[in-house]
Amino acid sequence: MTVKEYIAAHEEEFLQDLFALLRIPSISSQSEHKPDMVRTAEHWRDYLLASGMQRAEVYPTPGNPVVFAERIIDPSAKTILIYGHYDVMPVEPLELWKSEPFEPVIRDGHIWGRGADDDKGQTMIQVAGLRTALALDLVRCNVKIIFEGEEEIGSTHLEAFCQEHKEMLRADVILVSDTSMVGRNTPSLTTGLRGLAYWEIEVTGPNRDLHSGHFGGAVANPINELSKIIAQMVDEKGRITIPHFYDDVVPLSKEERDMIAQVPFSQEAYCKAIDVDAVFGEEGYSTLERNSCRPSFDVCGIWGGYTGEGAKTVLPSKAYAKVSTRLVANQDHDKISKLFVDYVKQIAPPYVRVKVTPMHGGEAYLCPIDLPAYKAAEEACAVAFGQRPLAVRRGGSIPIIATFEKVLGIKSVLMGFGLESNAIHSPNENFPLDIFRIGIEAVAEFYKLYR
Amino acid sequence: MTVKEYIAAHEEEFLQDLFALLRIPSISSQSEHKPDMVRTAEHWRDYLLASGMQRAEVYPTPGNPVVFAERIIDPSAKTILIYGHYDVMPVEPLELWKSEPFEPVIRDGHIWGRGADDDKGQTMIQVAGLRTALALDLVRCNVKIIFEGEEEIGSTHLEAFCQEHKEMLRADVILVSDTSMVGRNTPSLTTGLRGLAYWEIEVTGPNRDLHSGHFGGAVANPINELSKIIAQMVDEKGRITIPHFYDDVVPLSKEERDMIAQVPFSQEAYCKAIDVDAVFGEEGYSTLERNSCRPSFDVCGIWGGYTGEGAKTVLPSKAYAKVSTRLVANQDHDKISKLFVDYVKQIAPPYVRVKVTPMHGGEAYLCPIDLPAYKAAEEACAVAFGQRPLAVRRGGSIPIIATFEKVLGIKSVLMGFGLESNAIHSPNENFPLDIFRIGIEAVAEFYKLYR
Repeated sequence: MTVKEYIAAHEEEFLQDLFALLRIPSISSQSEHKPDMVRTAEHWRDYLLASGMQRAEVYPTPGNPVVFAERIIDPSAKTILIYGHYDVMPVEPLELWKSEPFEPVIRDGHIWGRGADDDKGQTMIQVAGLRTALALDLVRCNVKIIFEGEEEIGSTHLEAFCQEHKEMLRADVILVSDTSMVGRNTPSLTTGLRGLAYWEIEVTGPNRDLHSGHFGGAVANPINELSKIIAQMVDEKGRITIPHFYDDVVPLSKEERDMIAQVPFSQEAYCKAIDVDAVFGEEGYSTLERNSCRPSFDVCGIWGGYTGEGAKTVLPSKAYAKVSTRLVANQDHDKISKLFVDYVKQIAPPYVRVKVTPMHGGEAYLCPIDLPAYKAAEEACAVAFGQRPLAVRRGGSIPIIATFEKVLGIKSVLMGFGLESNAIHSPNENFPLDIFRIGIEAVAEFYKLYR
Repeated sequence: MTVKEYIAAHEEEFLQDLFALLRIPSISSQSEHKPDMVRTAEHWRDYLLASGMQRAEVYPTPGNPVVFAERIIDPSAKTILIYGHYDVMPVEPLELWKSEPFEPVIRDGHIWGRGADDDKGQTMIQVAGLRTALALDLVRCNVKIIFEGEEEIGSTHLEAFCQEHKEMLRADVILVSDTSMVGRNTPSLTTGLRGLAYWEIEVTGPNRDLHSGHFGGAVANPINELSKIIAQMVDEKGRITIPHFYDDVVPLSKEERDMIAQVPFSQEAYCKAIDVDAVFGEEGYSTLERNSCRPSFDVCGIWGGYTGEGAKTVLPSKAYAKVSTRLVANQDHDKISKLFVDYVKQIAPPYVRVKVTPMHGGEAYLCPIDLPAYKAAEEACAVAFGQRPLAVRRGGSIPIIATFEKVLGIKSVLMGFGLESNAIHSPNENFPLDIFRIGIEAVAEFYKLYR
């Protein structure tokens, strides 16, 4: 029986197994779902035991539990560690969903539901691929699995878990399906992720909201001043102005830029999809370079003063912004965080008080393309998709990948099968059935090659 | 019986009458309070009839009703028209109020509640002063009263009402208590008011909130862009940068600057009262000049993106701001409004869409100090306060005052008794009991002099 035949025969079973997972509303950022986190972890434990693992356990943490499982066939063989997460993002706004987020359905050749891609659908591809490879006796390496329940809230307790269980987690490589491909017809593997630093800025002017007629013109307005601070962060050429911000950024090589230029991309279609008339970014870089290989600075939220109906004339006491930068390989998020705090203090005028609170951060990541596991994943995808996947850096962040490298000393291969249109983190998250099948095949093929 | 004796005998009654008014939440900018506007107007009508008016009526408008009342004793006598407003500002943030905004109380010698000053407290001073003067047979002029319910939202329908009722509103002078004094020990009359122009800016980037990892750096962020637009509006010298903005501003005369310099003022106490370390304003002008005789630009509110708990990474679709300028005598608010709209369009970058909606506006006002009614008010205040009031321009706006002059051809005397510390438009609005008494006395004394 071939890999393809096995998958065709068991597809319905794999889908039902995934649906059972998708039905549990494991939203990590909302405390009322605490019991659902435990349920999901226990569900995975039982399923992994039923999938050929010799041992599977739920490990409590001060936050949501970690699921660990293993199948050791030969201590001298290679070991892979599969990482995934069972928590999902909130589902609001609910009214935009065409079907219930936690009642998964098949419609128009797609699986619909929160987690269909990120990351329940993709972890199920890994496990179904492993089940297939085990059934066909293709597996020659040891397999370990770690699924966490806090990825969407910053993997708060996973670093400590890694520190505590270094020996248990020992492996040659980590395999992760939590990223997306360039496009449906352009399979790709992710070789880079951006890092992140995030702050909240609070600007305080007068000690209370003032009448803008009685004080306007004589007292600094905290919203005007916050706007000035933000406006100074990026110059006309799209460069971030924080002193020493780019010091550690490694210049893009000609080779990498040439490869990025090969990625099918239409600037017109890109603009049309998000309905903008033009793009803006760092001078001297293409859109694909800007959103994956170069840092960025974004205000994620801003608020202050009167925001209700009508026209209230007020000189407000406070203004706030949540701001973030995406970082690239070799930038240290703690160092960047300090540079930002210092810079804001330096440019803040004496007539308002400015407080900057670092919120969270994560390092960027780069995967060498000559890693044996990378080569196996590349070849496996070539078989399953019928074409060799591109190696591309992506703009998002999975901070735990850098943590694995730092704490466990293990590189990760990012074998993700998502698509932009899967709408992760948004209403109507979905996953195409055909890619679900192909993904399982690619994972099963991986075990033929990684030996 | 002297004026003072009469007021002392009736103070409790006047306070209860004011409290009945303060209990009605007549917030004109919030549509759910529509019924409260009508209730307040009808309450005033009944109270004015009970206060010696021969006629009092509620006139519907397309917005909130206008209350008009009159007492004509002699067609050949002088006529005063008392203007006030019965609408109040919103009360948010509610948690900062020490007592309920619409459950007025007396505490520490002050009346506390929304409208205690602006303008229910001050209109009650006018009416209580008139009741006193009538009771003591001091009134020798005809009295007309007009109270509107849309002052805090730009007096939208009052101009049309004036156009329609020019004959009914005919008077020699308009008396208004809706301004404040320099200080508790420095009574003053307001001879100038600033004008106002107010807009809402909407900046649209992508058609939906985007993942800041996948798009950050490649797509313009509407909050960053809105901040840049706002940051450009005022230069380092505190000058507004809108082209031609200052074209019609009449330079401050040496005489007026000398008079302003006589107003008791401590920069240190000013900063301490609002808890700022330094002031900021237009170079070359003092604080008192800046906040009364020079224009200003303030952001009254700003919002966009994620403003909840924690750190959501998002490149938002929209950003909004409510912005306003205070204008000075001779600046045309319609002209300024157009200049602003044109300027924003000119500086808006091509990669976001910017919409500017003018909200409302009003002209500035100047009162000649040789006007007979001004002199009567000055003398009446001198009697009640025991010292002659200063003549000063103030920074606030009462756009309708300029409209009265334009439409009815009548000058207004601004006999206001507010104090900075009364916190109008803010939480814990209040009015000192002693000034309430002195104000009533000053109004009663006015009728002795204005004959």
